[in-house]
Amino acid sequence: MTAIRLALVPGEPAGVGPELCVRLAQRPRDHDLVAFADADTLRAAADVLGLPLRLLPPDNPATQPGDLGLVVIPNPVRAAFGTPDPRNAPAVIGALRDAAAACLDGRFDGLVTGPVHKAVINEGGIPYSGTTELLAEQAGREVVMMLANDVVRVALATTHLPLRAVADAITAPALERTLRITHAALRTDFGIAEPVIAVLGLNPHAGEGGHLGREEIDVIEPLLVRLRGEGLRLIGPVPADTAFLPARLSGFDAVVAMYHDQGLPVLKYSGFEQAVNLTLGLPYPRVAVDHGTALDLAGKGLADPSSLFAAADTCARMARLRRTLSA
Amino acid sequence: MTAIRLALVPGEPAGVGPELCVRLAQRPRDHDLVAFADADTLRAAADVLGLPLRLLPPDNPATQPGDLGLVVIPNPVRAAFGTPDPRNAPAVIGALRDAAAACLDGRFDGLVTGPVHKAVINEGGIPYSGTTELLAEQAGREVVMMLANDVVRVALATTHLPLRAVADAITAPALERTLRITHAALRTDFGIAEPVIAVLGLNPHAGEGGHLGREEIDVIEPLLVRLRGEGLRLIGPVPADTAFLPARLSGFDAVVAMYHDQGLPVLKYSGFEQAVNLTLGLPYPRVAVDHGTALDLAGKGLADPSSLFAAADTCARMARLRRTLSA
Repeated sequence: MTAIRLALVPGEPAGVGPELCVRLAQRPRDHDLVAFADADTLRAAADVLGLPLRLLPPDNPATQPGDLGLVVIPNPVRAAFGTPDPRNAPAVIGALRDAAAACLDGRFDGLVTGPVHKAVINEGGIPYSGTTELLAEQAGREVVMMLANDVVRVALATTHLPLRAVADAITAPALERTLRITHAALRTDFGIAEPVIAVLGLNPHAGEGGHLGREEIDVIEPLLVRLRGEGLRLIGPVPADTAFLPARLSGFDAVVAMYHDQGLPVLKYSGFEQAVNLTLGLPYPRVAVDHGTALDLAGKGLADPSSLFAAADTCARMARLRRTLSA
Repeated sequence: MTAIRLALVPGEPAGVGPELCVRLAQRPRDHDLVAFADADTLRAAADVLGLPLRLLPPDNPATQPGDLGLVVIPNPVRAAFGTPDPRNAPAVIGALRDAAAACLDGRFDGLVTGPVHKAVINEGGIPYSGTTELLAEQAGREVVMMLANDVVRVALATTHLPLRAVADAITAPALERTLRITHAALRTDFGIAEPVIAVLGLNPHAGEGGHLGREEIDVIEPLLVRLRGEGLRLIGPVPADTAFLPARLSGFDAVVAMYHDQGLPVLKYSGFEQAVNLTLGLPYPRVAVDHGTALDLAGKGLADPSSLFAAADTCARMARLRRTLSA
């Protein structure tokens, strides 16, 4: 059996992504790791850290600490840590697209990504609302964003919407998609044969029998009843505050939150450093860090690599599981 | 100096409130504790627990374990644990009103309350949306609901509103009231001379510069600027997910969340058992349990008294602080 091959994209070259990738390359690994990146930026990050870095052709197995496969995506402008340059935006997005294409055509088994700076990409003239959206469009798939750490997996029914737009966005078809994709991913990517999913209510106290909003009665409950009829193990709608009681949480394989700030505070509180951001529903596993570019830390060797380490470990595990399941 | 005197209302007589009050009466204390309740219900709870209970006249200091002062509020119907009877609703509400009146006229220094069953009160023909609202109306004060445990204090700018109504309810006058009441209570009831308050954004990422909603720019930020000009130490608007990172949280004396499910999941996750529900802005300290009537547990001696113990301790501490500050 050939080794699992992971594509690694550092993200914004002026942020902490490159140095986190250099740190990742120091770890012993049982899979191939190939960066889609600018060579000089990675070497500069290695210099900052005082760590070895041997950049190897992408098809050459790179297994010693400090080894990293590389598909060269040159930056037009030399990256200065801490000061993003919008002229490098095409290279940032190009690296993501090339790495994703390599996963889509089977040359790689999974994609691991560092933080991208949304505003800088847009300043660079490239419409970009997020890597999750970019990858979904490229693959022609509908996807679900999930944030996960060792305590909880939170999938979001809506992501980056103004709060006043959330209630209207919770429709039966949209929520059904979220639940089906989450259910399938828990089976395929996490190896849980019959996952138990807690579905939060939209309103406080999950609407309290219609006194605090009717979306639970009109939209969520009928959908859950129908999907339970197909055998999905769906709990809810559960009030958001009691769903996160540790004793209840331990009985759920994932929590589907209706919106961003309902689901993510507990995740960040309970273990931010090891948290990762997953895109469910793609033809390949994709795992990202759950933090930003941290420009103030970039080039200082101070950034905590835990989230990228967790992302790579999670992605490798998922890729291996998919290969086993399809064997 | 006379002893601090706390008024104690068990709440729904068929719930766990009475047995929690009997357990509370067993603890050594440095304050007077007087229940506003039905004597038979308390005795039945003591029998269930096999614990001593000596009910004493309200003006008689009751200081031995098992002693409890009592202002008799008779239930019209004998309470059956686990099966609420709406005919007892007037007694439940009467006990709350009498105990609150006794705090308002200075006979008591603080109010501690157990869980009330909202639907049963309404079935009993008494319009009731919550004890917080009842006490605010009786006192003629505007109040703020705060939930607190050892990790975090969360004050809510809105409480029990359907999610789609939240954005319109975040007005500058309403939020100003919440912030002023919270600030004052942190000084008066918690003894924090210059409290630091984190104010969450309404939208994900606190609106991300207007890309994900404009309420931060139009409403929240201008208000914070104005109140900072008066010397209030207000941080924000802070994105809800990063505000709850433990490292950030430790720098805040309280977090003002814009709505229920934004603020309470972390509180419940981080320590539900010891969590209490405070009403800020009343002329007296009021602390309640942060749980419901738990009808399925009532009369079995299984209910965890931690929240009522924490409520009584918190209320006694606040009452003592108010007395010190006004001396």
